[in-house]
Order: sequence, then structure tokens, then C-alpha cells
Amino acid sequence: MMSKFTIGLDFGTDSVRALLVNAATGGEIACSVHGYARWRAGKYCNAEVNQFRQHPEDYLIGLEAVVRDILRQAPAGTAENVIGISVDTTGSTPVAVDRSGTPLAMTAGFEDNPDAMFILWKDHTAIQEAEEITRHAKNWGGKDFTRFEGGIYSSEWFWAKLLRTLRVDEKVRQAAFSWVEHCDWIPAVLTGNTDPLTMKRSRCAGGHKAMWHKAWHGLPPEAFLRGIDPLLTGWRERLYDHTYTSDTAAGNLSPEWAEKLGLSTEVTVGVGALDCHFGAVGAQIEPYLLSKVMGTSTCDIVVVPAAELKDKVIKGICGQVDGSVIPDLTGLEAGQSAFGDVYAWFKHLLAWPLEHFALEGREEALSRLLPALEQAAAKTPIGQSGAAALDWFNGRRTPDANQKLTGAIFGLNLASSAPLIYRALCEATVFGAKRIVDHFMAEGVTVKGIIALGGIAQKSPFVMQMCADVLDLPVKVAKSEQSCALGAAMFAAVTAGYYPDVETAMKAMGSGFETTYQPIPANTARYAGPYRNYCRYAALVERENTIT
Amino acid sequence: MMSKFTIGLDFGTDSVRALLVNAATGGEIACSVHGYARWRAGKYCNAEVNQFRQHPEDYLIGLEAVVRDILRQAPAGTAENVIGISVDTTGSTPVAVDRSGTPLAMTAGFEDNPDAMFILWKDHTAIQEAEEITRHAKNWGGKDFTRFEGGIYSSEWFWAKLLRTLRVDEKVRQAAFSWVEHCDWIPAVLTGNTDPLTMKRSRCAGGHKAMWHKAWHGLPPEAFLRGIDPLLTGWRERLYDHTYTSDTAAGNLSPEWAEKLGLSTEVTVGVGALDCHFGAVGAQIEPYLLSKVMGTSTCDIVVVPAAELKDKVIKGICGQVDGSVIPDLTGLEAGQSAFGDVYAWFKHLLAWPLEHFALEGREEALSRLLPALEQAAAKTPIGQSGAAALDWFNGRRTPDANQKLTGAIFGLNLASSAPLIYRALCEATVFGAKRIVDHFMAEGVTVKGIIALGGIAQKSPFVMQMCADVLDLPVKVAKSEQSCALGAAMFAAVTAGYYPDVETAMKAMGSGFETTYQPIPANTARYAGPYRNYCRYAALVERENTIT
Repeated sequence: MMSKFTIGLDFGTDSVRALLVNAATGGEIACSVHGYARWRAGKYCNAEVNQFRQHPEDYLIGLEAVVRDILRQAPAGTAENVIGISVDTTGSTPVAVDRSGTPLAMTAGFEDNPDAMFILWKDHTAIQEAEEITRHAKNWGGKDFTRFEGGIYSSEWFWAKLLRTLRVDEKVRQAAFSWVEHCDWIPAVLTGNTDPLTMKRSRCAGGHKAMWHKAWHGLPPEAFLRGIDPLLTGWRERLYDHTYTSDTAAGNLSPEWAEKLGLSTEVTVGVGALDCHFGAVGAQIEPYLLSKVMGTSTCDIVVVPAAELKDKVIKGICGQVDGSVIPDLTGLEAGQSAFGDVYAWFKHLLAWPLEHFALEGREEALSRLLPALEQAAAKTPIGQSGAAALDWFNGRRTPDANQKLTGAIFGLNLASSAPLIYRALCEATVFGAKRIVDHFMAEGVTVKGIIALGGIAQKSPFVMQMCADVLDLPVKVAKSEQSCALGAAMFAAVTAGYYPDVETAMKAMGSGFETTYQPIPANTARYAGPYRNYCRYAALVERENTIT
Repeated sequence: MMSKFTIGLDFGTDSVRALLVNAATGGEIACSVHGYARWRAGKYCNAEVNQFRQHPEDYLIGLEAVVRDILRQAPAGTAENVIGISVDTTGSTPVAVDRSGTPLAMTAGFEDNPDAMFILWKDHTAIQEAEEITRHAKNWGGKDFTRFEGGIYSSEWFWAKLLRTLRVDEKVRQAAFSWVEHCDWIPAVLTGNTDPLTMKRSRCAGGHKAMWHKAWHGLPPEAFLRGIDPLLTGWRERLYDHTYTSDTAAGNLSPEWAEKLGLSTEVTVGVGALDCHFGAVGAQIEPYLLSKVMGTSTCDIVVVPAAELKDKVIKGICGQVDGSVIPDLTGLEAGQSAFGDVYAWFKHLLAWPLEHFALEGREEALSRLLPALEQAAAKTPIGQSGAAALDWFNGRRTPDANQKLTGAIFGLNLASSAPLIYRALCEATVFGAKRIVDHFMAEGVTVKGIIALGGIAQKSPFVMQMCADVLDLPVKVAKSEQSCALGAAMFAAVTAGYYPDVETAMKAMGSGFETTYQPIPANTARYAGPYRNYCRYAALVERENTIT
């Protein structure tokens, strides 16, 4: 009998990736990546006001390209034996759609309107709206619908972005019928059912980010939403009452897309999810380990048996969602709004003279800059750099989300060199990671170790050893370079019926770990002082920010 | 009758400069600059611990070179008509000397010992000793001998450096007979009387920086000094009881130096002074104007009629010295420990990739970097950069000296670019200037305008307009590019008897102002918010630092 295959589709911030795997072993057959053209050209974005938008066409073009490409790479006969596709995306990344579920940017008159496009997770134009939602949830006299979001609604999420758009763009407001998350829209497109009222919405994006909870039988009630702003009147009934975990099939591949991709209509398409959830599964998450996707930002997830939490709600994290990661476990979600982005910021800062004077060899130099800085920074003994930093360059996601917080560098003197500051920035990001682990512990959630995945986990032994030392926990680095896509392929195998559940798929298809960083006790001791400094500076700046 | 000439010698941080002027008009005949060779090579310094030492040979080689050079440039017959030389230097820059007044570094066995060299003003190795002196002055049960230093003794000054050296270098301690300030040693050398017990010590360096005051008839008493540390026993009697204002002659040029320089032994040599004091005179200081020497750091001086202050002592400044600038007026001294050095730090930071990868064209690029940043920074509207900084990269001199404070940058986000941060750094230095003016005002000292001199005053209209706007005061920029040396030449004319007093010399020899920056009211209003932020962040960091 011929082997069976599944496809994991992972829509990241910059590109979409497809991974073709053997459903029995998880063996990776082919992989393909496609960058979003409009995004690369910087279109529809304005970093100064944190506006980041992506065009739906970029997604569809990329989707077709990468699936076609992996099939081209695979041996003949593979396409016929693909049994399932699952999809993850960034999020909350919602878009305004018309009655047919078509994003407005794909309809006449809205082609170049950023408000008619997907509003990327890291778009922070809705800070004010998020604050209003949080305030209203505390004061409206009824249930606090943010309680499973740690009590603070984020500007990165569904309702804040929806409300912001309704306020600033009347045309979009008039033309929109409903709103859809990126990870729900792709399966809807692939199955040919984009009707906003009947497409299957995901538990983790369509659910959690929109304050859906089974405890209140769906989305927050109309009365609550209208109280935030009358503009929100009438949207609830054009959204959804149910959400689905990702072991559920959204449907089969539509004839149109089966033809486009070169696959059969027998292929099941799974309900989507946010990338870090599938990443955690791809990296074989287990209870009490914290799965940390370490890229431009981090997404941190701990899963615990639902029974253990009973009715306890964990404060100050981003989410507590039953079945968001593994159907029978409760996913506890946290993260850092900027991690690799902090290093990228510094690189960009130092690049200024090279770019401004258009020096020859600058591209080569820039490509080697971060490794060179890291090498120089590693030579400074722990705690001797003098400088200290706060990692809130993109606000703070966890603990206690606050998008108004900003980054800072302290302890500068005339001898503060680029490597010393780089070291301080690395330490700040890792201290930010420790604050999250400390917070989980303080809330009674045991964390016994870290599973690290994503670019930084693979590329920077310096930062990873620092993580182990600072957290005083073993840090396992996932072997697969595409854990998110691999997790998607595992879910695809479940929804296609190849495995009975995700746990079984993880065991059979997991690719294990390439390294484990163990904490070095002497280093852990040396980081204690700098970490206390970080916490003290953090408290100072936060208090100051609250006064402002 | 042939014109008469005087020579102003100005020993700066990096180089010595000689200026030959017409004593009648102040017309500049010739100028010459010589960089210190050992200093340029980075010898005897360690920026990481703020150790900055200069070799006495560097001074003597430079002195001979620049005087010879200006005479070579001048028309024949000029040398014979030079009537006086006066000298200013940085300070407090003291050195350990033997019985003959020779700096130990010029004696056998100490040639390469940094502790046997001049300890440059910006050397901060004696922070602990300065704190001990301040504490002792408050607690010893007698007079507070720091009261004319604003109540806080600085690590930049005489006794702190002396005590530090005695503690860390037993060989130097054994070999030293006395200590001499740089600006007292050069006139001593030129007149051939280097005997530590009889050479004329200056009011502003030998006096003020060593807690000399006429109110207590000289240096602090032995009992006080011994109480700081028994190591200080016996030094007082090998120092001095009297100090002299710079309108006094130290003596005539010695036969040896007359020959070396190509001048006559008729030339009078004036009592020396610190550079910023002569700079203020060279820039025609008048009561209620703040003279600001703006270079790597700033030195700020206001002169007021002694009668006006009566017995009032101004707190939190660096000095209140009768006759330190102009014999009949009281000099009130303040300053910023880093000004241009903050910009230089940022340039050095951004230079890292260029240097590390040895990119071609880097020297040209670096020479144009600060102007390019300034041009880009000027395009950001006031108060819109988001970022804010503290200028304490080299501690804080005024108000309320505190060498433990450090620089910081706040409000950073992923869009914080090099020009935005550069703007924030410029604003921080100018806000630091405003804090000093505000402090003078709060202490009842009227400041009606600024006289700016030094490199930044001449080179950066951007920073100078910012000064006028932030301070809400007119800022006059001295026309002479070497106000310190010009002031020295004015004093030389007085000590040589060409003018009866400094005021007359200033009027006759002053070269006036090249520009006056007037505050732009709309800008002044826009800077109010950012300045409040600066003060708030300053209070935060200072409080934090006090807790540490």
C-alpha cells in the first residue's frame, strides 16, 4: 500500500510555508516558502503609527505557489495520496468581508484601502479601542468578558480592530457584512464555503480573541457590545455562536481549489488555528512544559489538564482556552510582543550610516552584523555590561498586557559600546521571558521546562543558553525547523482520520529535539542581580507610564 | 612705536593651542595647535573605569611646538615685542611632584606609571574618595569645607584624586612631596620656579578645587584632612596658604625657556587658570550672562558683584569663588559632565559595523555622520520623536553633582530610528543646560542670556537654536574660535601692565559675537512638555540610583 501524506500550511508574518509530510512517520518530504510581495514592498503599512496590513491576494498567490511547489518536488504519485491539509496563521489577524465572505480589498473600490485588508497581529492602531473594551468590561455591571484573556483586552485582537476600523473608515463600515480571522478564512476558501454565517470558526482565533466562551454560550451579548460603542450594534448576529477545535474538519477541498492545487476533492481541510498553537503541537508539547515560539515576537503556551484548574482563572496572561492547543487540555497563552524584533531594531539602528552613505559591502556586513555583535557580547562577563534594557519595544503582551509601554536602555556611559548594549538587549528579552514564567508560577501553574522553537531557538546558542541560565530550567530546542507547519500536518492527519487524536499523531509524527540547554548554576546565580535590576527598572517605567 | 603682543596658551583635553594677539586690538596674528601624542595613542587611559591620565612630557613638547610655530608664522620682529604669556588648562588636573616640583612621571622609575601623571579632569576613579570627603565635611563636627563647592565634593577634584592615588599606589605615595595643578605647573615651569612651597597657585584651580577659602585662611586644617583618612596627614604643610587671581604675574620667563621659545626674559608669565574661566573672559562675559563653553562637556560660569551675594552661598553648583574669573566679581561655576561627548558616543556606537567590517569609505562617512544625523533629526517636529534621554553619560556635574548617575534612553519602539534617537540625545543635553539655568534662578541668581563658545557653539546651529528655544533666552555665539586662548592673551596683557585691569582688556581686545540665536516662542512652548518628561525621568532614575 502506498504511503499517505498530509500538508501543513503555515502563514507567518512575512511569508507562507507549505510542508509535505509522511502521515505515518512525520518524515518531511518537501517544503516551500513564498514571501508576500506587497508586504515586502512595504505597502499599506506605516511603522510609525504601528499600522500593519496585508492584502488577501498575497495570501492566495502564496498558497497556490507553495502547494504547487511541494508537489513538484515530491515523487510522482504523491499528490494522489495527500489526505489532509491544515492551516495556521498569525493572529488575531481579522478582515472585513462582504456578504459572500470576500475580504473587501478583493472587491471593487477597496483594492488599495488598508482598512479593507487583513489587520496583522502586530498592528497597534487600536490601542484606544482596546482600553475602552477593558474598561467597559469592568464597569458595565455584568460579567467581565475579558476574564479568560487575563482581564485585559489587547489592541492586537478582533473587537478592538473591528471597532477601530468602523470608527475611522465609513466606506468599509458601510460595505462590510461580517469579519473573519485569517486562519478561518483560508480553510473557508479551500473548502468553498466562505459564507460568514456558516463557515467553521476556530476555537483559538475566532473564539478566544473575540471573547467567545462556552460559559456564556458564544460571543459576548449584544447589550455588552453596544455599550462599548453604538457602532458595534448588529455585528454579533452576523458573526457566529459556535467555535471548533482543530481536530475537526472544516470540509473537503472544493473542486475549484482541488484543481488549482493539483489535489483531489477527497482531501479534508481542517479547522485552522494560530501558528503558535500548531507550533506547540509540532514541537510535541506536554503538560507543564512551556512551548515558546521565538521569532520576531514570542508566543508562549503551557497546557494543563482542565480538571486541574477547576474554576480558577489565571490573571494577567493573554488567554486561557479549553482545547485551543490540544482538545482535552486547557491552553494557557502568553507571549512577548518583541523578541527578535528587538535585535532587529538594533541592527537597523546601527545600519543607518551604511544605508545613508550607501557604503559598498553594506549588505554583506549587515547580514553578518548580529552574529558579530553576539560574538563580541558573549565576551562580556555576566552582569558586567553596566547597561540594562527594557524589552517593551512593541509594548508588553504578558504579564499584564500594556501596549503603551515602551523600550528603554539604562546605565549608559561613554564606554557603552555596541556589543555591551546588544548584550543588555538580549538580557532584556530573556528577562522578559523569565517574568512570564515567574508569573505562571506565582499563579500556581507549574513550569518544568521550556520547549523552544522558531528562528532564534535554532540560530542563537548564545540567547538559548542565556534562557536556560536565567530561567534556571532546561530548554529543549525542537529539531524541526518548521514546527508550526509540522503541527499543522499532524492536525491534518487527525482530521483526515489517519489518527484518532492529536496525542497519537504527535507521538507518531514528532521529530524530537536537536539540543537541550541545561542551566549552568554559576551563571544562574550571576543573572540574579541583573534580573532584579530589570524588575526594578520595569516597575519604575511602568509607574511613570501610569502617571503620564 | 612697534605694536606689542601677548600669547594665550590653552591646554585643552586633546591638544594645546597658542594664540598670538595684538595687545592693543586683540587682533589674532597667529594660531597653532599640537595634539598630545601619548594621549592620541590611548596610553595610560582606561575608559571602562574612567581612568584618564596625561603625561607631562606631552604638555612640554606641545608647548614648545605651538609657541615656536606662532612665532614662525608672525612677521619678523614680533617675538621681540611679545610682552606677556598667560596659560589656562583643564582642571582639576593635578599631579604628584617631588621636592623640586617635578611631576613623578618625569623622574626615574615612574615614566610609565599612570599614577605619576596628571589626572585629567574627567578621570572618575576617585568617586569613592569624593563621597568620603563630602560625608566627612557634613559629619566631622566642624565647618563644612565643601560649602563653596555647592556642598558636594567632586571626584573630578584635587583632594579626591590625591587621596585615591595615595591609597592605590604606595610607590607614588612614598616618592611624592607635594601636588600641583596643571595650570599652576606650566607657569611654574616657564618662570623657572617649580618649588611646590613657593610657586604661585591659582585662585580657581589650586584654590577652589582644593577647598581653599579666605574665610578659613587657606586650605582646610590638618585635623579635618586627617579625619578623612590618616593617609592625608602632613600634606597640607607641603601645599600652600595663599592663592592668586590671574591678573597677577607669576614671574618672568626663565632664561632656559626664553631660549627654548625664542622670546625674551622680559616677558611676564601670568598666574594660570582653568580654561573655561579664561574662555568666559575671552568671550566678554558680563554680570548676569551665563558663559557656556560647549565642547565634549560644558563649563558654565555666571559672574555677579560680590556685594550682591553678601553671605549667601549658592547650593548645588560646583563653585562660588571670589575673583576666579574677574578679580572683583564672584564666579559661580556649574557645568555638564558630557555634552558633545554624548553625540560622540552615539557616533561611536553607530560606527561599530563600519569599523568591525572595515568598510571602505568609513572614515569619510564617519566624518559626515553627525551633520547627516542632525539634518535628519531637524526634520522631526519638536516633541514628536517619542524617545527621550538623560544626558548623564559621564555622571552629572550640576545641579547637585553625582558621578554615579548614568545616561538612559526611554520611549523606544521598533520605529525609533537613528535620527530620532539623535534628536532625543541633543534634547537631553540642552535640557541638562536648562536644569542648570533653572537652578541658578531658583537660587536667586538672575540669568539674562547665554554666551556660547567652544566647538558646538560654532558648529551646530541646530543645537544652538534648540538652546535658545528651550532656555527661552538669547544665545550669543562668540566670534573667536579660540575664546579660551584669547582670554589668556587678555590676562597676559594685564599682567604685563599693558592694561590696568581685565575689564579694560576685555573691552579693547574682545572680538565680539558672530550670531545671536533668539528664542522662537512657538518652539519654546513645544519644548515644555518634553522638558517636563526629562525632569520626571531624571527624578525617577536618580531616586532609583539612590536606592541601589
